[in-house]
Amino acid sequence: MATKEGKSNKLSFQLKTPKGTRDWIGVDMIIRESIFSAITEVFKRHGGTQLDTPVFELKEILAGKYGEDSKLIYDLADQGGEDSALRYDLTVPLARWLAMNTSVQHIKRFQIAKVYRRDQPAVAKGRMREFYQCDFDIAGSYDAMIPDAEILRIVVEVFEALNMRDYITIKLNHRKILDGLFGACGVPEDKIRAISSAVDKLDKLPWDQVKKEMEEKGLEPEVADKVGKYVKLSGGREILDAIKAEEVLIANENVKKGVEDLELLFKYLEAFDALDKISFDLSLARGLDYYTGLIYEVVTPLSSAEGFAQSQKKSKSKSKPNGEDQNIGVGSIAAGGRYDDLVNMFAKKRQIPCVGISFGVDRIFTIMKQRLESEAEQGNGTMRASEVDVFVMAFGGKGFNGLLVERMSVANQLWKAGIKAEFAQTVKPKLPQQFKLAEAGGIPLAVILGEDELAAGKVKLKELGLPEGHPEKDGALVAREDLVEEIKKKLNKASLPIR
Amino acid sequence: MATKEGKSNKLSFQLKTPKGTRDWIGVDMIIRESIFSAITEVFKRHGGTQLDTPVFELKEILAGKYGEDSKLIYDLADQGGEDSALRYDLTVPLARWLAMNTSVQHIKRFQIAKVYRRDQPAVAKGRMREFYQCDFDIAGSYDAMIPDAEILRIVVEVFEALNMRDYITIKLNHRKILDGLFGACGVPEDKIRAISSAVDKLDKLPWDQVKKEMEEKGLEPEVADKVGKYVKLSGGREILDAIKAEEVLIANENVKKGVEDLELLFKYLEAFDALDKISFDLSLARGLDYYTGLIYEVVTPLSSAEGFAQSQKKSKSKSKPNGEDQNIGVGSIAAGGRYDDLVNMFAKKRQIPCVGISFGVDRIFTIMKQRLESEAEQGNGTMRASEVDVFVMAFGGKGFNGLLVERMSVANQLWKAGIKAEFAQTVKPKLPQQFKLAEAGGIPLAVILGEDELAAGKVKLKELGLPEGHPEKDGALVAREDLVEEIKKKLNKASLPIR
Repeated sequence: MATKEGKSNKLSFQLKTPKGTRDWIGVDMIIRESIFSAITEVFKRHGGTQLDTPVFELKEILAGKYGEDSKLIYDLADQGGEDSALRYDLTVPLARWLAMNTSVQHIKRFQIAKVYRRDQPAVAKGRMREFYQCDFDIAGSYDAMIPDAEILRIVVEVFEALNMRDYITIKLNHRKILDGLFGACGVPEDKIRAISSAVDKLDKLPWDQVKKEMEEKGLEPEVADKVGKYVKLSGGREILDAIKAEEVLIANENVKKGVEDLELLFKYLEAFDALDKISFDLSLARGLDYYTGLIYEVVTPLSSAEGFAQSQKKSKSKSKPNGEDQNIGVGSIAAGGRYDDLVNMFAKKRQIPCVGISFGVDRIFTIMKQRLESEAEQGNGTMRASEVDVFVMAFGGKGFNGLLVERMSVANQLWKAGIKAEFAQTVKPKLPQQFKLAEAGGIPLAVILGEDELAAGKVKLKELGLPEGHPEKDGALVAREDLVEEIKKKLNKASLPIR
Repeated sequence: MATKEGKSNKLSFQLKTPKGTRDWIGVDMIIRESIFSAITEVFKRHGGTQLDTPVFELKEILAGKYGEDSKLIYDLADQGGEDSALRYDLTVPLARWLAMNTSVQHIKRFQIAKVYRRDQPAVAKGRMREFYQCDFDIAGSYDAMIPDAEILRIVVEVFEALNMRDYITIKLNHRKILDGLFGACGVPEDKIRAISSAVDKLDKLPWDQVKKEMEEKGLEPEVADKVGKYVKLSGGREILDAIKAEEVLIANENVKKGVEDLELLFKYLEAFDALDKISFDLSLARGLDYYTGLIYEVVTPLSSAEGFAQSQKKSKSKSKPNGEDQNIGVGSIAAGGRYDDLVNMFAKKRQIPCVGISFGVDRIFTIMKQRLESEAEQGNGTMRASEVDVFVMAFGGKGFNGLLVERMSVANQLWKAGIKAEFAQTVKPKLPQQFKLAEAGGIPLAVILGEDELAAGKVKLKELGLPEGHPEKDGALVAREDLVEEIKKKLNKASLPIR
């Protein structure tokens, strides 16, 4: 069964999941599912259609899409047949699907699925080799910036659904403005990519370090300063006016086109009530080659311990975390952009413009979990590990036979009515043991069977966890035929722990 | 980008998904999701906790669990580090998890996930290399047959939720009865597995062919006949009485233990209202080595074209398809059993009895799709490809500017209220084009903006697809502030197509 010699004589192999992967269960799973469900609801509200692609693709499909990071792709073994590899993201599979399905001219597609990268895992930070992405993309030819604005509206709605709207900023920029700006400042064509990657670090490093990196990459100091003058700009619409006032910039065709796009975008985002979350940030560059227009990244201070502590202090005051003091540890929790040429890489006759967003669920999960734990410490909210609402139990005196078949029959009555119910899976359980099982699952209600009561067609319904002295502490007798209705009434009461 | 030379000059590689895999989207995806959602609801009703394991496991974990079928396992390439392979089922990952998490003594876990087998695909029959399994297992030491009975109750509830209860039979048998029966009839110990696999074919082959196979495998004809006398039995509780009446059988310890188990099981299934779906079938053997007690398989005539046609004819009469005439093409759509020793294979100190069921979603999907298509042909029920409820459109006379920002603002009003809404993503769409987009999505409601109406604070709300002459055919003017409420009223009306 096992091939390697183990270190102990108990096991001849390592009992673990592969490096950078983990099992999900219990409260973690419930939190993650609640994030998926909130995101899915928003995606469907905007007309999203779900696509599910295979977990592996032909290697040729993935080749040449991820630049240097291609070394992180997981290959399947050559067992005869086709060369395949695990998907690296959900964007390339979408482009492959769009290239194959030539009758599709327009689609809003979403996909929530695992992707795979043979990166160095950082488990504590939630960076794994197997992780989820939640993607929404709009493919098709539309009038300028309308789908782009809807994607950003979706970002706002998703974080609203997750109660995080107050703690996010959508940083955005435009590839054409960035390229045009570099050109206008005199950055040589062949250095644009390298300089762009230096500029992208401005959110983490001070300007003089970024400038030093530019000079090391061969840029003249005066050109670097020109670039610096612009890429340090960030804010709202007023930045557009600042760019338009710079003749050297606006004379550049790329800059001009980008500015026109952003003017439309700001107008549309105003109609979508999303403008307050936008920071037009000229230093945002993003790595991927395939972006052709708008690019964006959602950041939050909540993904750092300091930022989280601040948000807890300020959570009542609705302050926006955009201030200088909150710049420490800002992490990206969603990102995307426009990519108009990717489908064309797969099918020369297909040209389908696309724009999309990918939510990093694992980082959002870490934030949500931290928040729930902090709320639980403060005594607000409870997290139940089980969803079961009713525990069916029995008790009796001397000669008590456990009433197993009767407990089964009552549980069955509840299941038929769609009620989540369990019972102790032993013939003669003791009463304290049954209460312990109910308590361990955080189950809010008990139905208690006794022989005499059953003979009279009744059972006892009891709310668990009520304080001593509560008028309903002992529960009440209910006729079997009214049981379902009485349980549903109790489950609708706000006093029960919500999950 | 591509490495191989293509046959055409348009593409230098094949544009497809890997062999035995497919994309899921549209109506297929909606049907599959509705199956998952029905199954998940039943799983949670019974206290199920969701587990998510990595898509690949260390190769040593999978080794030695699948016998000859191990050749069907997909290996990952050796890229340095650990040897891994895609999971082959969800049972072995559960056992690995139980072995690792030593504090867990009891759990009802479910998992809905893709598994991978390098088998010859049969796409038309829905047999793929990547396919979903939906598993529910109860792990832990309980009193005999209580969890087993709950698993079978879950089977009944799942097919009830899928409106298939009338068309399934749960065939069950007990490994101990089967082994004891072979022993009592004089089958040599070393031939039991081979003879068992011959007996398992009795649902497809006539007795004399099965007998012939047994003789070819070295069994004496008179021993074969003794075996045949018993394995041809199938039915309900009365088969237990028949076995008990055979002294040669009941004297066997294994048979005796199995009969005791089944007597308990039948009692519990009666309390669970599930007895009518059971067929105790002494020829059921099932392949997997790790089963130690009860085994079962859910069959339906619906997975054959003939059976499906019959069910359509009989669907009003609620007849049960257990009769002789429906035996053609019966297919297995769920299967499972008790496996008390699997966890112990991973951790010598851990002995956790388990019993579980795996639903074959792809076969269930094929049946559900066939049924929906047949209902659609008969004019019952509609399948919408989109879930969007409202299309926001605009119209105007000469000089009409398209009212784009206004359409955005109304759509945004609806999104904020949780209503699924879309609009044409162009600046100046023509009215017929907007109606066409709404119709293509099967969207039931339109909000129509006009300049004069907007100036008066009103919009038109119109139900789409109403017949000529219907009193509400033209829609009605509604104040902007009442729009959400009016839409919700209309969406609650039963006349709208449900999805």
